[in-house]
Amino acid sequence: MANKAERHTDGSGEYIVRLAHDACVGYAALDSSGQLSPFCFVRRATGQDDVAFKVTHCGIRHTDLHQIRNEWKRSVYPMVPGHEIVGIVIEVGLKVSTFRIGDRVGVGCRVRSCGECKACQKKAEQFCAKGVFTYNAVDMDETITYGGYSSHMVANVKFVVRIPDGLPSDAAAPLLVAGITAYSPMRHFGMVENGKHLGVVGLGGVGHMAVKFGKAFGLKVTVISSSPGKEKEAKELLGADEFLVSSDKGAMQRASNTLDYILDTMVFVGVPDKPFAFNATSLIYGRKLVAGSLVGSIQETQEMLDLCAEKGENWKMSVSSEP
Amino acid sequence: MANKAERHTDGSGEYIVRLAHDACVGYAALDSSGQLSPFCFVRRATGQDDVAFKVTHCGIRHTDLHQIRNEWKRSVYPMVPGHEIVGIVIEVGLKVSTFRIGDRVGVGCRVRSCGECKACQKKAEQFCAKGVFTYNAVDMDETITYGGYSSHMVANVKFVVRIPDGLPSDAAAPLLVAGITAYSPMRHFGMVENGKHLGVVGLGGVGHMAVKFGKAFGLKVTVISSSPGKEKEAKELLGADEFLVSSDKGAMQRASNTLDYILDTMVFVGVPDKPFAFNATSLIYGRKLVAGSLVGSIQETQEMLDLCAEKGENWKMSVSSEP
Repeated sequence: MANKAERHTDGSGEYIVRLAHDACVGYAALDSSGQLSPFCFVRRATGQDDVAFKVTHCGIRHTDLHQIRNEWKRSVYPMVPGHEIVGIVIEVGLKVSTFRIGDRVGVGCRVRSCGECKACQKKAEQFCAKGVFTYNAVDMDETITYGGYSSHMVANVKFVVRIPDGLPSDAAAPLLVAGITAYSPMRHFGMVENGKHLGVVGLGGVGHMAVKFGKAFGLKVTVISSSPGKEKEAKELLGADEFLVSSDKGAMQRASNTLDYILDTMVFVGVPDKPFAFNATSLIYGRKLVAGSLVGSIQETQEMLDLCAEKGENWKMSVSSEP
Repeated sequence: MANKAERHTDGSGEYIVRLAHDACVGYAALDSSGQLSPFCFVRRATGQDDVAFKVTHCGIRHTDLHQIRNEWKRSVYPMVPGHEIVGIVIEVGLKVSTFRIGDRVGVGCRVRSCGECKACQKKAEQFCAKGVFTYNAVDMDETITYGGYSSHMVANVKFVVRIPDGLPSDAAAPLLVAGITAYSPMRHFGMVENGKHLGVVGLGGVGHMAVKFGKAFGLKVTVISSSPGKEKEAKELLGADEFLVSSDKGAMQRASNTLDYILDTMVFVGVPDKPFAFNATSLIYGRKLVAGSLVGSIQETQEMLDLCAEKGENWKMSVSSEP
């Protein structure tokens, strides 16, 4: 991946040709039809602070579907989706000392932040207003970012995490966004006290992860879902202790005030489109709080991966479905 | 206040007469007209866990007006209001070792809790579902509680706080409810980091206290009020740094994202009657949280009083108005 670009000029001005082995092959959406097509493009050469890696695994998230179909009205085509990317390092920049060729690494949903704002200073760079998403975003050099449905990836080392030994690559990939989206609020807001009771609303990708983390933290876990058919999966596959169907008013009423924490994957860690309304009195009694969370920081992501490897559970099985 | 009750019987059954010096004189609402009238009643004799004290000061809160006028539809007449009560101990029960005759003490808005539930065990007895309010409530012995607009008070020692030397009684009284309602969430949710920026919404009794505590904790304080006329009071009397009129959209917009904490005395520590609606996205970006709080515990109240005495500021002046 060394910089093999050659400068050429013709009547229309200067342009750059890269040699064939810098070329990247991926799958791109060319329009909002929902179809992906093979697509060739050129990644930037590995800069001095960059890590280049061959992509071996990439998660498929519901976000990808939204973006491919332009459901959020901000899609730019051709678009190469994928932001739960795992692979093997093939080149590192001159200033990179933390990774070596052959290391297993990952990149989540962001590849850049300003490094200077309050959020960045506090290592909560996921809130950086100048942050750049892994795909379908304009990078600092004005190019459009392309995601992990591709043969290789180049990213600034600050946004590259190490996949620890003992954590399979296919298990690691979905942790990079779905996993950290569940893990970060649980850690940040202290929803980890052994023996406490966690409610998980919505059993999609994030919900699956929340159940797994809940059990890893020693919590009692109740899944609250609109789909009665998910009970078996929740209990048998993921180890949830209880399962509530949200339309069952009696069961919901009986469960009221039994939960210490609720992770609502449908509203407060997703991207809800409707206002959320509640009576403030319900927060006043019991000094309850409602909070939002957005994915998680790189530091938290590394911590989560290390924990998953250490716990040695089969994290892979928690990614069987998406909302 | 010794137990001088004598049992008598007549044709209608057994009844109890207490001697004249157990009688209490107060002001009571006899109906929802809003008028208070002199009212004689009998307090219970000082039990072994009780403290009896002569009432020297009692705050007047908006709550009292709501209750007197039956605006919450749960008033029982005759009603003796008042739950920011300060006085001088005149008798202590046999098991009480923490107070002596002559001590200055206070009672806030609760006089009883079960002592056994989760909330009580965690010293957050303000959330005890069996808690008994200081007035207009049914006590354990089925009698109706009478508040501090009266000549003396008898309360279980667990609900009696010490007024520290250096804190005048008239300054202490409003701290017992309005003060602790501001102090408790600030402490509990860590809104006390020196140099941070606090917004206080509503400059009523609780809002006044919040501004004072904000300054005592070293915060920059911005008052947000619907009344432009309160600017002078906010800045000159209470020491607020900034003042925003909530209807001034431009000023509100410019202030957006400048506050680290907001204490909304109109919604989240009061008793709002309308649902509160917001877009969850506003919590997700910045990992913000919304929380409720209810008055505060006895332990927090004592801590707050001690802090006020230690800070030596004139807490009295912060109680000039109610919302």
